Amino acid sequence: MSENARPLDLLNNARGKMILVELKNGNSITGKLIAFDVHINITLDGAEERKNGDVLRKLGSVFIRGDTIILISPTV
Amino acid sequence: MSENARPLDLLNNARGKMILVELKNGNSITGKLIAFDVHINITLDGAEERKNGDVLRKLGSVFIRGDTIILISPTV
Amino acid sequence: MSENARPLDLLNNARGKMILVELKNGNSITGKLIAFDVHINITLDGAEERKNGDVLRKLGSVFIRGDTIILISPTV
Amino acid sequence: MSENARPLDLLNNARGKMILVELKNGNSITGKLIAFDVHINITLDGAEERKNGDVLRKLGSVFIRGDTIILISPTV
Amino acid sequence: MSENARPLDLLNNARGKMILVELKNGNSITGKLIAFDVHINITLDGAEERKNGDVLRKLGSVFIRGDTIILISPTV
Amino acid sequence: MSENARPLDLLNNARGKMILVELKNGNSITGKLIAFDVHINITLDGAEERKNGDVLRKLGSVFIRGDTIILISPTV
Amino acid sequence: MSENARPLDLLNNARGKMILVELKNGNSITGKLIAFDVHINITLDGAEERKNGDVLRKLGSVFIRGDTIILISPTV
Repeated sequence: MSENARPLDLLNNARGKMILVELKNGNSITGKLIAFDVHINITLDGAEERKNGDVLRKLGSVFIRGDTIILISPTV
Repeated sequence: MSENARPLDLLNNARGKMILVELKNGNSITGKLIAFDVHINITLDGAEERKNGDVLRKLGSVFIRGDTIILISPTV
Repeated sequence: MSENARPLDLLNNARGKMILVELKNGNSITGKLIAFDVHINITLDGAEERKNGDVLRKLGSVFIRGDTIILISPTV
Repeated sequence: MSENARPLDLLNNARGKMILVELKNGNSITGKLIAFDVHINITLDGAEERKNGDVLRKLGSVFIRGDTIILISPTV
Repeated sequence: MSENARPLDLLNNARGKMILVELKNGNSITGKLIAFDVHINITLDGAEERKNGDVLRKLGSVFIRGDTIILISPTV
Repeated sequence: MSENARPLDLLNNARGKMILVELKNGNSITGKLIAFDVHINITLDGAEERKNGDVLRKLGSVFIRGDTIILISPTV
Repeated sequence: MSENARPLDLLNNARGKMILVELKNGNSITGKLIAFDVHINITLDGAEERKNGDVLRKLGSVFIRGDTIILISPTV
């Protein structure tokens, strides 16, 4: 672990991989990370919206506004 | 997928196409994307406001303030 | 639809016309659009505040703070 | 109506007159508008705080923080 | 009333006097105004926190973060 | 009381002393003030988190994000 | 304790160590602190999300958006 490690490194390394996004409204979205910016706005491909683990709907491509995000975790 | 991909690319590619907008108040709006800016303020044509899938009202042209948006997804 | 279309174009074209403003508190306001700025602060004439379609009160001239607005739609 | 009309014009014209201020907490405040700034912070004289039309308390002079305000309407 | 009146004038004139501070969480705080800044962060001496008029606790000196404040009123 | 008094003076004088921090979620934290910045981010030593006066947990060293704070009061 | 102590010192000293992160939604996350920035965006390794002390799910690597954080405490 470097003194120079930065939080966005995690997102950079997750490009093209599946991630879990937890939203402030209690729902989660999974999908392949395509892009992000400094506001943590992100775009995903093959996205699915979930509530308590159940799929609410398949979204496909999706833009998520950064200020609605609690956390982002690469899924194994 | 490019290192240079940016979240707004998705919105740029969706101009003139139907999109789904999920709002923080739990409602959704569908319509044809006309314009957007860096705040994710957007304008739609032929917009319909929905709650749990049911149409609440037909809005036609509409301006949506970016800070009320959770996500935007182009519909197939 | 132009690549250069911007969300505020819709508001510019709505000056002097009747619009519907949906607020974050669940109420709506209708009235004639007089002015707006980049914060989406707006002023209306002949404004009426509504809840579930019923008129709560007639406001006449009104200043609405932009950060309380969900969407704005010109009414036919 | 001019292309150059701005939302703050309404507040400028309301200086020294009675206004109604609707707050995000559901209460309203009436009083004579003394001053305002670009944040829509305002000061009133002879202010009364109301809930559902009933006077909660007489405040006299009051400073209201702009980010708690939904709308401002000059009263006839 | 001057065209140049500004909202912070009310706070400047209230330095050293008793004020009532209404908070977004529904509580109120009374005390002698010692200092304030442009964020409306304020400090009071002899402060008491109240709910529905009843004293919740005596705080003495207190710093209140501006973004938690609805309104400030000098008490007679 | 000086015309030049500033709200952060209270925090400067409280360094190394016990303070009470009231949070927007209704809990309180007590501890010795170690540092603060202009966002009112603060760090405490020997911190305890409380709800309605009861200790929820002993935190020891803690960083508190400024935007979650309602008020800060030096305890006697 | 120095006059020059700053809140981020606590986070700097916690790099590579286990921390507890309390979120505004009432959940907590524990994990090893990898990186943080001035927005208090942070990344953790070996993260677990907890509610009332019970593990909700194991997240592994996680990015947490700063504006969802109440407090951060190094765990012993």
